[in-house]
Amino acid sequence: MTIRVAVIGAAGRMGSHAVEAIEAAEGLELVATVGREDSLDTVLEAGAEVAVELTVPKSTEDNVRFLVEHGLKAVVGTTGWDAEKLARLEELLTAHPESAVLIAPNFSIGAVLAMHFAELAAPYFDSAEVVEIHHTRKLDAPSGTAVHTAQKIAAARTAAGLGAVPDNTESDPLGGRGAVVDGIHVHSVRQAGMNAHEEIHFGSMGEALTIRTDSWSTSAFMPGIVTAVKEIPHRTGLAVGLENYLSLRTA
Amino acid sequence: MTIRVAVIGAAGRMGSHAVEAIEAAEGLELVATVGREDSLDTVLEAGAEVAVELTVPKSTEDNVRFLVEHGLKAVVGTTGWDAEKLARLEELLTAHPESAVLIAPNFSIGAVLAMHFAELAAPYFDSAEVVEIHHTRKLDAPSGTAVHTAQKIAAARTAAGLGAVPDNTESDPLGGRGAVVDGIHVHSVRQAGMNAHEEIHFGSMGEALTIRTDSWSTSAFMPGIVTAVKEIPHRTGLAVGLENYLSLRTA
Amino acid sequence: MTIRVAVIGAAGRMGSHAVEAIEAAEGLELVATVGREDSLDTVLEAGAEVAVELTVPKSTEDNVRFLVEHGLKAVVGTTGWDAEKLARLEELLTAHPESAVLIAPNFSIGAVLAMHFAELAAPYFDSAEVVEIHHTRKLDAPSGTAVHTAQKIAAARTAAGLGAVPDNTESDPLGGRGAVVDGIHVHSVRQAGMNAHEEIHFGSMGEALTIRTDSWSTSAFMPGIVTAVKEIPHRTGLAVGLENYLSLRTA
Amino acid sequence: MTIRVAVIGAAGRMGSHAVEAIEAAEGLELVATVGREDSLDTVLEAGAEVAVELTVPKSTEDNVRFLVEHGLKAVVGTTGWDAEKLARLEELLTAHPESAVLIAPNFSIGAVLAMHFAELAAPYFDSAEVVEIHHTRKLDAPSGTAVHTAQKIAAARTAAGLGAVPDNTESDPLGGRGAVVDGIHVHSVRQAGMNAHEEIHFGSMGEALTIRTDSWSTSAFMPGIVTAVKEIPHRTGLAVGLENYLSLRTA
Repeated sequence: MTIRVAVIGAAGRMGSHAVEAIEAAEGLELVATVGREDSLDTVLEAGAEVAVELTVPKSTEDNVRFLVEHGLKAVVGTTGWDAEKLARLEELLTAHPESAVLIAPNFSIGAVLAMHFAELAAPYFDSAEVVEIHHTRKLDAPSGTAVHTAQKIAAARTAAGLGAVPDNTESDPLGGRGAVVDGIHVHSVRQAGMNAHEEIHFGSMGEALTIRTDSWSTSAFMPGIVTAVKEIPHRTGLAVGLENYLSLRTA
Repeated sequence: MTIRVAVIGAAGRMGSHAVEAIEAAEGLELVATVGREDSLDTVLEAGAEVAVELTVPKSTEDNVRFLVEHGLKAVVGTTGWDAEKLARLEELLTAHPESAVLIAPNFSIGAVLAMHFAELAAPYFDSAEVVEIHHTRKLDAPSGTAVHTAQKIAAARTAAGLGAVPDNTESDPLGGRGAVVDGIHVHSVRQAGMNAHEEIHFGSMGEALTIRTDSWSTSAFMPGIVTAVKEIPHRTGLAVGLENYLSLRTA
Repeated sequence: MTIRVAVIGAAGRMGSHAVEAIEAAEGLELVATVGREDSLDTVLEAGAEVAVELTVPKSTEDNVRFLVEHGLKAVVGTTGWDAEKLARLEELLTAHPESAVLIAPNFSIGAVLAMHFAELAAPYFDSAEVVEIHHTRKLDAPSGTAVHTAQKIAAARTAAGLGAVPDNTESDPLGGRGAVVDGIHVHSVRQAGMNAHEEIHFGSMGEALTIRTDSWSTSAFMPGIVTAVKEIPHRTGLAVGLENYLSLRTA
Repeated sequence: MTIRVAVIGAAGRMGSHAVEAIEAAEGLELVATVGREDSLDTVLEAGAEVAVELTVPKSTEDNVRFLVEHGLKAVVGTTGWDAEKLARLEELLTAHPESAVLIAPNFSIGAVLAMHFAELAAPYFDSAEVVEIHHTRKLDAPSGTAVHTAQKIAAARTAAGLGAVPDNTESDPLGGRGAVVDGIHVHSVRQAGMNAHEEIHFGSMGEALTIRTDSWSTSAFMPGIVTAVKEIPHRTGLAVGLENYLSLRTA
């Protein structure tokens, strides 16, 4: 049973990788690619069941509305989905219960798993810190993913009744201890030749657990997109975050 | 509500660490320590609710039987529990439903979490390999934990419908590709100054996920023992493996 | 003082990267590119002082002879220079003392430095092992670089009077201890998404030193080529190995 | 030819490890141990050739003076040797040219090698950053070793004519980029269960070189002390820094 897939935003950096990934994936057939000038009708005419939407914030809501109204299922990687847009989409999906939409700010399976693992591990260790390494063109520090990871760790510690991480630093005039996000220290390395990397450190008396993700290029997002496309035929309604489409429980 | 704890095998390497850890843990009170020459009655007289059993394979079954028959709960770190002994214990627990026994071959929380994470991650990556590093006194290779990790990864891949890991090696006259356990390659490094360490590598197009555990000493097992002692009052019956006492699901 | 540079083999994978790197480098001017169909006279006509030779084993000797005979200096990345060819080249250079040739099997500065550091560190640690990680298209194991690293470590240990590395392994039925090169264990990991990586482990009582190199693409060789092109105007004669053109001593 | 060794400060943490290490080392014979109450004459009476001085800042200068005046050679690990004391010692050694003193603030061979390698590598990479990880009892950040490493890297970059490391960070309100020491970013992680660890990151287009040292305990300093004791019979005069006693050049 091959799934018929369209890519909207096929000419962009993510889109062109997605086209290649879908063409290469077993069980998926690429039936349409839509660029900025093309009509979305192409998707319908090609008989696509699933559309991968990788365009720009100002177009994504209209595109997804069109897909839902025509009963297609949509895997969306475009950013810009604020609470208001999500509320409108949820309402629309109620009226089209046969449709399904996954909105994923991060299609890196490694990053999504790492964050999930960090949440599970956090209650069991005295210390937790995050080190992120990115290319030198990055404008902000710490990275959004690292901040998000620290927040999840902090919440999991609080839920488990843990107090502050142990830290006896008395003198740090230059700020070596880095950023503090909800009580968790986050360090940002900028290194030529690197892309996007994160190392989550947990430690207790006599032991350490370290979770590292490396993402070298846009192609790192493709396994996540392919996984989502294969899963969405079995889903209905709205999901935000790729983790909802992964199987994160053992038997 | 303080939990009253006895340590059986208190003079051994693990036992003496356990004594210290229980004394240091909030919410636990050490009420008895039992050495090779001492009677188990000490445990009863001291009013212990939970006993930590860290003796030797030939004593452990009798000790645990005594504890169960007297309605205590037992956290057991001694090895040697084969299928037959486990069956006898399970029968005994049926007759004493107020008791509970946790038998844990590995009290390292980091190692237990790492194995769990490896199972969850395995279905999502093309490649998976295990590198373990141990001290140079170790007699066997690969380590039992590494073999077990590889088996779990292999089973998770099979369950997810994945085939063999990609490998185009045609020439490897010296055996550089290491041990193969259920199709997963395992590498054993022996290094002076190290203790017990494992690195689980997952990779796909453009990304990697690496899970590393470091265990530097027997003290690494203490957080696991303390966690188990705190959890066992809420449990009944038999559990094998510390993972059963950890909370491994997010809300 | 700009150095005038030609690239021979400019259409190949290495060559096209070299063209870009030389164009981008301060102090270098790309004055000619030579493809398979082009005459080497182009190099002379363009007034190049240095030529980067990145062709194929069967052409490289003739190309380098031409360059030397015309008094140019040549940075050569092509393989296939056996002892006989090197002897002929050395003789030729005696007749052209104004010329210089660097033949470098590996232009990765990181890899060259790592090997040098491994040699320096080897005498001071009880244990030494090498783990290399490569993409899954690689046909042979262990990698040539890892074998070479192990040989250098072994030689440095011998020179320092060290005996065999400590290893008490008695049982290793699956070959987890990996390849043994001159007494040094080498482990080969094959992982989708990776390119070429090496980790050199040294350990003694209470401490470890780890040297890691990561090379993600052909572009990793460009800093080495640029460094060589900038250095060769100050050199005469033959050098084999980029390490000869690096400054590896502190003041 | 066995070297006869005395340990002064034998009851301290470093001293007691040193006693064990010298007893275990081939070619060394422990002939005297001196505690706080003992006379230094013990060292002379025992016929020691080399003394390892591991006491406290207020005693070390007198002890070393005594050793030099009696023609012994001294390996000194005690801190507190300021410029003034060093000048006096140098003068004293001029009058006793048969003596030799090594003053080493850090006996970890791994740390000394790592710093040396960092200096050698620094000129060849666009980016360089330092991450240090220490136990949670540490009072200051960044660690002295990390600051020293950053200074050495900065000096080596300047000497090679390199400019500032590339960094386009525009927004870092929480200080994730860490401390900046002579233009090099330094990050300080504090983690329960760890001891003293440093990771030096170098990166350029397409490649990375990472040097990591791990020091788990005082025992990590013993190989450095043993190496110094074996080397000092061949030396005269004053040396500051273990690196002066290591062989850091290849043939």
